[in-house]
Amino acid sequence: MHERNSVSDLAGILRGELSRYSVGEKLPSSRALVDRFRVSPVTVSRALGTLAAEGLVVTRPGAGAFRAAPHSAPARPGDTSWQQVALSVETPGEAVPRAVDASGVLSTLAEPPPGVIELSGGYLHPTLQPERALAAALGRAGRRPGAWGRPPIDGVGELRAWFAREIGGPAGTVAPSDVLVTAGGQSALTAALRALAPPGAPVLVESPAYPGILAAARASGQRLVPVPVDAGGVRTDLLAEAFRASGARVLVCQPLYQNPTGAVLAGERRREVVRIAREAGAFVVEDDFARFLSHEDAPAPAPTLAAEDPDGIVVHVCSLTKITSPSLRVGALAARGPVLERLRAIQVVDSFFVPRPLQEAALELVGSPAWSRHRRTVAAELRTRREVLLAALERELPDLRVDFAPPGGFYVWARLPDGTDEAALAAAALRAGVVVSPGRPYFAAEAPAPFLRIGFATTAGTAELEDGVRGLRTAWEEWTGTAAARKP
Amino acid sequence: MHERNSVSDLAGILRGELSRYSVGEKLPSSRALVDRFRVSPVTVSRALGTLAAEGLVVTRPGAGAFRAAPHSAPARPGDTSWQQVALSVETPGEAVPRAVDASGVLSTLAEPPPGVIELSGGYLHPTLQPERALAAALGRAGRRPGAWGRPPIDGVGELRAWFAREIGGPAGTVAPSDVLVTAGGQSALTAALRALAPPGAPVLVESPAYPGILAAARASGQRLVPVPVDAGGVRTDLLAEAFRASGARVLVCQPLYQNPTGAVLAGERRREVVRIAREAGAFVVEDDFARFLSHEDAPAPAPTLAAEDPDGIVVHVCSLTKITSPSLRVGALAARGPVLERLRAIQVVDSFFVPRPLQEAALELVGSPAWSRHRRTVAAELRTRREVLLAALERELPDLRVDFAPPGGFYVWARLPDGTDEAALAAAALRAGVVVSPGRPYFAAEAPAPFLRIGFATTAGTAELEDGVRGLRTAWEEWTGTAAARKP
Repeated sequence: MHERNSVSDLAGILRGELSRYSVGEKLPSSRALVDRFRVSPVTVSRALGTLAAEGLVVTRPGAGAFRAAPHSAPARPGDTSWQQVALSVETPGEAVPRAVDASGVLSTLAEPPPGVIELSGGYLHPTLQPERALAAALGRAGRRPGAWGRPPIDGVGELRAWFAREIGGPAGTVAPSDVLVTAGGQSALTAALRALAPPGAPVLVESPAYPGILAAARASGQRLVPVPVDAGGVRTDLLAEAFRASGARVLVCQPLYQNPTGAVLAGERRREVVRIAREAGAFVVEDDFARFLSHEDAPAPAPTLAAEDPDGIVVHVCSLTKITSPSLRVGALAARGPVLERLRAIQVVDSFFVPRPLQEAALELVGSPAWSRHRRTVAAELRTRREVLLAALERELPDLRVDFAPPGGFYVWARLPDGTDEAALAAAALRAGVVVSPGRPYFAAEAPAPFLRIGFATTAGTAELEDGVRGLRTAWEEWTGTAAARKP
Repeated sequence: MHERNSVSDLAGILRGELSRYSVGEKLPSSRALVDRFRVSPVTVSRALGTLAAEGLVVTRPGAGAFRAAPHSAPARPGDTSWQQVALSVETPGEAVPRAVDASGVLSTLAEPPPGVIELSGGYLHPTLQPERALAAALGRAGRRPGAWGRPPIDGVGELRAWFAREIGGPAGTVAPSDVLVTAGGQSALTAALRALAPPGAPVLVESPAYPGILAAARASGQRLVPVPVDAGGVRTDLLAEAFRASGARVLVCQPLYQNPTGAVLAGERRREVVRIAREAGAFVVEDDFARFLSHEDAPAPAPTLAAEDPDGIVVHVCSLTKITSPSLRVGALAARGPVLERLRAIQVVDSFFVPRPLQEAALELVGSPAWSRHRRTVAAELRTRREVLLAALERELPDLRVDFAPPGGFYVWARLPDGTDEAALAAAALRAGVVVSPGRPYFAAEAPAPFLRIGFATTAGTAELEDGVRGLRTAWEEWTGTAAARKP
């Protein structure tokens, strides 16, 4: 945070001084700027990067930074208003809304404003990421002969075999040939949804569900049909009727540490979900995003649904990103039967293949001694953080109700008192320096009650986490105060 | 080729010897295998990788390779036949075929069989790729603080600025904020097509066209409407009528060194294409895949269509992959107006963002002294190869007609005599040890004549290129001999 502020401060100073230089003239060297402003070389480099992004300077590695030629406006001012028509024209009989809503996804991907405590993001805090091991793995991967060539279309063989072992578990029921390497979990979800249901078709989703699933289905023109989730996972007593009433051929669910509720699909329900889907002639997309996010005190997770499904009902999605770093965008799809060919074709046509150096780096990482060390560290740290967060919430915000906070994943899903305006509360939280996620975007249709998702993996440590909860209390008091004042 | 054979030979020997080891037992060390079989460490590593991919051994970096537990079959044999129904169900009124055809794309992506001369691929031969510069750039990129974190959603600022300068050219009419960094050109094309036209909508494509464009549009459920191309690019005398008759709101074209014909969109036609699209209220997707593939003897290419379009008609697609390596999957979309927001949303929902280390490596590469050196080397080499190929074709295969082979790109588009069976000829070529691309997959509808696309960037050198043409002559003689024998 400190670093972020000094970058923008330095960029501001340099921006103001730019008029002293003529176009093409060299700016002072990085070393000179380091000395003058007493900041780190990284800060100087990022500040110059900011100005370069604005088109104000041009940087040439090894040579320095130069004042850029001013960005010339087009010969005449453009008129893009015709696009509003072109982007809205529909085909006859089409049921697909054209606009694509990325807001639910963007809120967990965007960097929060500087100085704000993030209780909302979808990734481990940088201090919990295995940065050094990744740097070493990538360096080795990039130097291997052939590292930059075409990988096998379905993924590097050893990595497919590794994913097959992880997905199949001790029973070993998933073969490497059942696996496709993907560019992270979201790409895999998008490919699965596009492969399994045509535009306009209904898709069953959990309620609440991860907004990335809702956005991907909507972007594919599919209609969302929500099925409620409780502490035992998706409600199987409502599932058969949801398939029957909608005619859906796909259910997307997260059986383990569901996002946002943390629900774990319980014993008998695991078999029920697959049985009901089989009877409906439908696929189950198992988004197993959190298998590596078990906390230290968690019982061993149940096997994947894919491991126990010989009939190709389950299309399995997983990823290394959550347990490592946002930019290690390496995941997998696993499936059996003709659907695998459809998935492969969609993936190849959409994006060809996953860059080989990233696949090789992933393989280096999971094969290194750092891997199990890293997993143990994260498991211990997530447990501590969950306990600290729950204690702080109980202390500071007794009005919030946390029904279950299972020993896995990054989040606590807190029920707000009836009538709470989530959006107003989140806005008040931001004023108090804390980002949290309002519950609304997690529901495909109307939300049954107000909620907040509070993350505990994205702060620098437990102290910042507790600061965040205190900020949330300030916001809560502000909101309840305002709400009370409004009453006649 | 040598290397490839020795890998599969060694894998075969080791596979045969595996039964000597018990499950979990360590295989001989890599060094011992190097000594025993007198092969390189790379060969040993790749051979063990092959066995690992087959699930026969498990490799643990630093520890060695071990015999794996046998892959257990599922508890009962699965039955996936129900999927054929589920994968074909359509929504009422739906005009979208469900199957996805990746064959046209796969033919240029898949590695050819060992020992075969490749005159078909879409990438530079490994000897022409800047492998060392890429390895260095990636190593540096991966070690930067924050290298593995979330990049800005639209791409790293300096890289957007670099693309903006390349796309806008000297006039500087494209701003960094008009640019989105993408995971290579194919992802950008897919995002553009999905953003600009709904499923079922018509899309104008060149005839012939790059199969990756045809496959991406078909996978988005769009209807292809071909517009003929001649040496001057897409035929503008047919374009207005094509828009009118189809109602299309999108044309996809490659104005520079079109794939497969090599056509360059000529002076007046450049303005015509944009004018006609404007009158149709339509977008032009400019797939500028070959800007960095100008040969040494080429005149300076015309600016991009995007550089001269203030009204947001042109959606520009480009990529660094072709001029570097298949796995540097970094490209860009550039657009103005509300469409940029649609493109951004599609890209975020589909795949979140491009891994930061790849973006940083691309930035390192294009900013390094190696970049202009590499481009000069490739320009000189492509010119030589083009000349060698054309001379060899004239000498060995006078029956093939090459109407124009412009000084850019990787391909020569050769017209075959009427009545030639392209598929039979390509099969004969494969028997003679040469892979070429039959013309058929390049046409969205019926092909007007038989063609072959012959690539000159994918061989180890000019000697192999000439060997390839001799192989093609053998195939031609076989085919004409067979054809003559068939006549009564």
